[in-house]
Amino acid sequence: MSSDAWFTIKWENGQVVMLDQRRLPTEEIYHHYSELNEVAIAIEEMVIRGAPAIGIAAAMGVALAVSKVNDATLLDSVLSQAVTRLSATRPTAVNLFWGLERMERKFATLKSHTLEEIQTELIAEAEFILAEDVNICRKLGQNGAELIPNNARILTHCNAGALATGGYGTALSVIRAAVSSGKTISVFADETRPYLQGSRLTSWELHRDAIDVTVIADNAAGHFISRGEVDCVIVGSDRTVANGDVANKIGSYSLAVLCKANNIPFYAAVPISTIDLNIAHGDDIPIEERGADEIKFCGGIQLVPNGVPIRNPAFDVTPASLVTAIITERGIARPPFSKSLPALVNKDQ
Amino acid sequence: MSSDAWFTIKWENGQVVMLDQRRLPTEEIYHHYSELNEVAIAIEEMVIRGAPAIGIAAAMGVALAVSKVNDATLLDSVLSQAVTRLSATRPTAVNLFWGLERMERKFATLKSHTLEEIQTELIAEAEFILAEDVNICRKLGQNGAELIPNNARILTHCNAGALATGGYGTALSVIRAAVSSGKTISVFADETRPYLQGSRLTSWELHRDAIDVTVIADNAAGHFISRGEVDCVIVGSDRTVANGDVANKIGSYSLAVLCKANNIPFYAAVPISTIDLNIAHGDDIPIEERGADEIKFCGGIQLVPNGVPIRNPAFDVTPASLVTAIITERGIARPPFSKSLPALVNKDQ
Repeated sequence: MSSDAWFTIKWENGQVVMLDQRRLPTEEIYHHYSELNEVAIAIEEMVIRGAPAIGIAAAMGVALAVSKVNDATLLDSVLSQAVTRLSATRPTAVNLFWGLERMERKFATLKSHTLEEIQTELIAEAEFILAEDVNICRKLGQNGAELIPNNARILTHCNAGALATGGYGTALSVIRAAVSSGKTISVFADETRPYLQGSRLTSWELHRDAIDVTVIADNAAGHFISRGEVDCVIVGSDRTVANGDVANKIGSYSLAVLCKANNIPFYAAVPISTIDLNIAHGDDIPIEERGADEIKFCGGIQLVPNGVPIRNPAFDVTPASLVTAIITERGIARPPFSKSLPALVNKDQ
Repeated sequence: MSSDAWFTIKWENGQVVMLDQRRLPTEEIYHHYSELNEVAIAIEEMVIRGAPAIGIAAAMGVALAVSKVNDATLLDSVLSQAVTRLSATRPTAVNLFWGLERMERKFATLKSHTLEEIQTELIAEAEFILAEDVNICRKLGQNGAELIPNNARILTHCNAGALATGGYGTALSVIRAAVSSGKTISVFADETRPYLQGSRLTSWELHRDAIDVTVIADNAAGHFISRGEVDCVIVGSDRTVANGDVANKIGSYSLAVLCKANNIPFYAAVPISTIDLNIAHGDDIPIEERGADEIKFCGGIQLVPNGVPIRNPAFDVTPASLVTAIITERGIARPPFSKSLPALVNKDQ
């Protein structure tokens, strides 16, 4: 592994540049996109994935489309076509629409400006969305690092990393901040079936940044926890609700139960934007079931007989009673979360 | 799927016939072996796997070698060469040596017999070893079926099935016996990373026998257990020790913790031959760590970056405190296992 800097996505010389996550962990290839449709296809084909990263890519896609316009009278239609095209890429991704709306709102404030000003401002807005996300991740990591003792052996699940965000990540930002502060940290990365984000992505990005990481099968997490070889578990979260129940990648709940049974902390690293105080209880979080082929096939080999049903829930819900603390960019929430979470969400910035 | 009978291994017309488990779940191919070396290669290359099944295959390999002898003065050397060749196939498999010793002991009782009698008796001994194993599995299943309510939804891990034994299996024999007794049963099969015995083998053999089975990622077990969609978990065991601690495929311990946290039973299906009263406590069971490539590659695709360490323990230990009952062919052991297990092991037959 080389020690030079790498990145998930950036705007550079009028182009959107993305690391191709489909080629990881064996190849590190960057694509330079100069057309809106290339960015849309990259999102569709999962060159980039992870909710915050998709939102950033969509915003940059809009900026790219607008940057090509030569006639100001076409701006409205180009922007609206770009939003329509990008909206169709990953229609269940909330951050996608959030990124597009940010760009539409910005555009609405620029109506009286020149074409060139509008283009410059929209590029700046897309870059600002990226910078904001990086900033949130860094703050979250710095807050979480206080919970991590020196010589900690941390287990993480899925990829709550720089590859899923603008940079640093959520769970992995806590690990990066602990390492940056001089602590000696080693990481177990669950491989995270069925999509293997742990073996393919988390191990790659930590190894790339020279952080000690070991890959294990999801089945082995309990073994290492029970033998006293894990000091805490840190996961990300797709949605955290008002009572502190945490929805995250399938398998997170099992890890939380194992932590409780073995008296080690279970932490969720959660940007404020993913806390949904409108949902009272984790039972009310809809759980996406994904297609059977993620389990039926691996590397082109068929693993399950034809005719056998497969269930493939993508997320599970960890009840608040199993969560030691929720780490956000605005501070750390402790039980009872029904009080501590609203306090953080409504905190003055 | 056709509804005709299938089998793991049998002796037929002077040949050893085996189902090729490497071709499952997509192809059902039987190999007919008429030479010792073919049987040895089949064991080495994992045409057949599972401890009891390997022991049976080794015994049949000896019978095959002896059946080819035309000159009684060669019997000693042919038998001893066969044992040497077969011993080298899977040198860590205890049942392999057990099967070979059974054949050597039988041979030692036949010194005064004619060549033809010796050949007939050794074939009969190999077939008897198979029949004994099937009988143990059937009795174990019948005992365990009493624990299974009608309409039970059972989760199992790895392949403790007919494919690993002479027939019926251990955990899967309990399921088969419950179905045979007229109960409606549905099964969740964990895919069982890294070797995927659940998705490839358990789902195949249950589906082949028209038993309702659904494959899930190991990570999803906790989700379904916590939602009340699983009534009990049944696993096999590689070794069960005097205090009732159960060593089994990696991931079994996590399932037992999940069962306890959700108040459902966790059963181990354990032939008496795998109970080791000479070991007091599960901490003293050596845990085999297998090679990294089972996790690094799948279907020829590389999943983990070069240079990243991988830990691959093949087994874990479930403490007796998490085990509801241990099912054997001689009856069901309940806590305290330190009393109930020796009572079953020493029970008059």
